[in-house]
Amino acid sequence: MHNFILKDENAVFYECGYSCDNEIYIKSKDDAFFLTDARYFIEAKQNVKNAIVVQTSRNIIKESRLLLRSLGIKDIDFNPADFSVLEYQSLSKNLGINFIAKNEFSKLKRMIKMEQEIETLLMAAKLGADKFDEFSEFINKFGLGMSEKELNFHAQNIFKDSGNLGLSFEPIVAINANAAKAHAMPTDTKLAEGDLLLVDAGVKFKRYCSDRTRTVCVQNGFKFDKNQKFRSNKQNDIFSIVKEAQNEAIKAIKPGILACEIDKAARRVIAKFGYEKEFFHSTGHGVGLDIHELPSINKTDKTVLKEGMVFSVEPGIYIENEFGVRIEDVVVVTENGCEIL
Amino acid sequence: MHNFILKDENAVFYECGYSCDNEIYIKSKDDAFFLTDARYFIEAKQNVKNAIVVQTSRNIIKESRLLLRSLGIKDIDFNPADFSVLEYQSLSKNLGINFIAKNEFSKLKRMIKMEQEIETLLMAAKLGADKFDEFSEFINKFGLGMSEKELNFHAQNIFKDSGNLGLSFEPIVAINANAAKAHAMPTDTKLAEGDLLLVDAGVKFKRYCSDRTRTVCVQNGFKFDKNQKFRSNKQNDIFSIVKEAQNEAIKAIKPGILACEIDKAARRVIAKFGYEKEFFHSTGHGVGLDIHELPSINKTDKTVLKEGMVFSVEPGIYIENEFGVRIEDVVVVTENGCEIL
Repeated sequence: MHNFILKDENAVFYECGYSCDNEIYIKSKDDAFFLTDARYFIEAKQNVKNAIVVQTSRNIIKESRLLLRSLGIKDIDFNPADFSVLEYQSLSKNLGINFIAKNEFSKLKRMIKMEQEIETLLMAAKLGADKFDEFSEFINKFGLGMSEKELNFHAQNIFKDSGNLGLSFEPIVAINANAAKAHAMPTDTKLAEGDLLLVDAGVKFKRYCSDRTRTVCVQNGFKFDKNQKFRSNKQNDIFSIVKEAQNEAIKAIKPGILACEIDKAARRVIAKFGYEKEFFHSTGHGVGLDIHELPSINKTDKTVLKEGMVFSVEPGIYIENEFGVRIEDVVVVTENGCEIL
Repeated sequence: MHNFILKDENAVFYECGYSCDNEIYIKSKDDAFFLTDARYFIEAKQNVKNAIVVQTSRNIIKESRLLLRSLGIKDIDFNPADFSVLEYQSLSKNLGINFIAKNEFSKLKRMIKMEQEIETLLMAAKLGADKFDEFSEFINKFGLGMSEKELNFHAQNIFKDSGNLGLSFEPIVAINANAAKAHAMPTDTKLAEGDLLLVDAGVKFKRYCSDRTRTVCVQNGFKFDKNQKFRSNKQNDIFSIVKEAQNEAIKAIKPGILACEIDKAARRVIAKFGYEKEFFHSTGHGVGLDIHELPSINKTDKTVLKEGMVFSVEPGIYIENEFGVRIEDVVVVTENGCEIL
C-alpha cells in the first residue's frame, strides 16, 4: 500500500469514521494520523478509529508538514483536487518527499460499495422517498399559492426530518419555466393548480446520500411518482420521452457494460425525438458519501460497471422559457442487472 | 489595474453581482468575462453586470484556458487558495501566461467596506439580533427537554425566516460541557432549567453575513443578552471575565491601531485571571460576503485598522468537560472608534 494524505471530509471519514471541517489524514506503512485543531480535538479523540489523533494549531498544513518530515517517508500519494495551490506549496515545498498526484484515488477506492454501505444507501433512499411522499402531502394541503422560495424552505424542513437527517444538497423546487434551468435558484414564482413542478432532493443518512428527481403536474391528490398527466400535450410528450430514456438506461445496466453505454442508451431515446440538444448534462453520477462520486455516467466514461457500484440515472429535457422534465433514481449494480434503491 | 482570474463565489459576486457554484470570472484591461455552464447560463445572463457571459461545458477550466489564450495577455493575478492543484495545472500549464500568486487579493480589496455594504451588514446584524430574540422566545415556550439536535433544527428555521434569509454558517447550539467545544456538533443532550447555553449564529441578508454569540443561563424569561446570572460561581466568574475581555477589546478599536493589539487587549484580561490556555482561538475575524474575511484579529496580524473595516470580537474561555463561554459581536471601525452593528 502507498502512503497517502487526505483532506477531503468524506475521504477522511471513509478511512477512520470521523471528519470535520479542518482536518488532515495521513497514512504511512505503519501508522495513521488524524490532525485537527483545538475546536474539534475532543470530538475527534472520541470518534476517530485506528489513527492517532494529533492536536494542531489552526495552521494544520504547517503541522502536517512537520509530521511528514518526522515519518522519514520518500513518497506520498495525494489528490490534486483536494489541495489548493497555496496549501500544496506550504505542505510540500523543499520537504524532500515526492508528492504523487493521483486523481480521485479515494473516490476510485470507494466506487464499489461494501455490503454495509449498500444497506445504508438503501435506507437513505427509502427515507428520501418517504420525504417525497411527505412533501406531496404538504403541497396538497398547503402548497398552492406558495412561492418557490417558501416551497424550498418547507422542502428543506421536511427532508431534514427535524434535524434527524442531513441534506445531500440544497433541494431544487422549480415551477414551469424555472424547471428548464437544470439547477434553478428558488424565485418568487407562486405555485398554481396545473403547474409543472420539478423537485430534486436527497437526504443524508449516516452520512450516505440519497438523490431523486420527480417532475409532476400539481393537481388535487398528486404524488411524486412516474405516472403523471400534464395539462399540455407537449409536457406529456416530453415526460414520456424522458421516462422512456430512463427506462432504457436502467435496462442497459449490468456488470461488464461501460458507463458511457448507459449514457448512450438514454441519449439515443432523446435524440430519436429530436431533443438531443435539450439534454445537456450527463445521465448520472456515482452516489455514496459524496453526492457526486464515480462512475460518471456520461458520453466518455469508460469505467466497466461492476456489482456494488451505485449511481444515479437522471435524463432530462429542458425547453428554455417553457418547462423542463427530469426523472432520477439511484441504482445499485447487481449480479445480473441493477436494482433501484 | 492587473488582469485577474477568480473562482471563489463571493469574490466573483463582488465584481459582477452574481455567482453560482461553477463559474470563472476573468478581468483583463479591456474586458470582463463570466463563464458558466448550461445549468446556470440563463440566470447568469439575467444577473451578471458589466461582463460578457460565456456558456461553457462542465469543464469550465478548459474553456477558461482557451479564452485566456485568445486575450493575448502576458500575466494574470490569481489567488492560490482559490484553485486546486489540479485546476491550476489544467488552466495554466504551457499556456505562456505568467500566473502571479496573490494571496487573498479579493479579500484585501474587500477589507474596507463601502457605505452601502456597511448598511447591508448593519441590516444583516439587526435581522440576526431579532432572530436571537425570536429563538429565546421559542426556547422559553418550548425548549426545555429538547435535545441540542432539535434546538439546532429550530434555530436554523428561525434564523432562516422561512427561507427569506440565508445562514452565515450552521448555528452552534451547545449545552454545558458541549459549549466547551468551540465548534460543537449538536448531540442528544437535552436542555434543562438552569443549563448554560451557548448559541453562535448568523444570517445572510443580500449575501452579507451577520455573526453573534451569546452564552446564557436558561431560566424562565431569559434573553440572549450580556446580563446573565448563572447557577454556579465559576460560571459567573468566567462570564464576567469574557465580558470584560470583549469590552476591553472593543474599547481599543480605532483607526491606526494594529489588529494584533485588539487581540492583545482581550487576551490580557483573560490571562490576568489565569485562563490564557482556555482561550485557544483568535479574538475575531473580518465579516462581509464571507463569514471569515480580513482583518484577522489575532496575535500576529499587523493590519492597521481603518474606518470601514468590519470584524467580529469574540473572546471565549472553555473549561473542558464543564462548560464554555463566548461573547461575540460584529463592529465597524468608525472615524474615532467603532460601533457595534
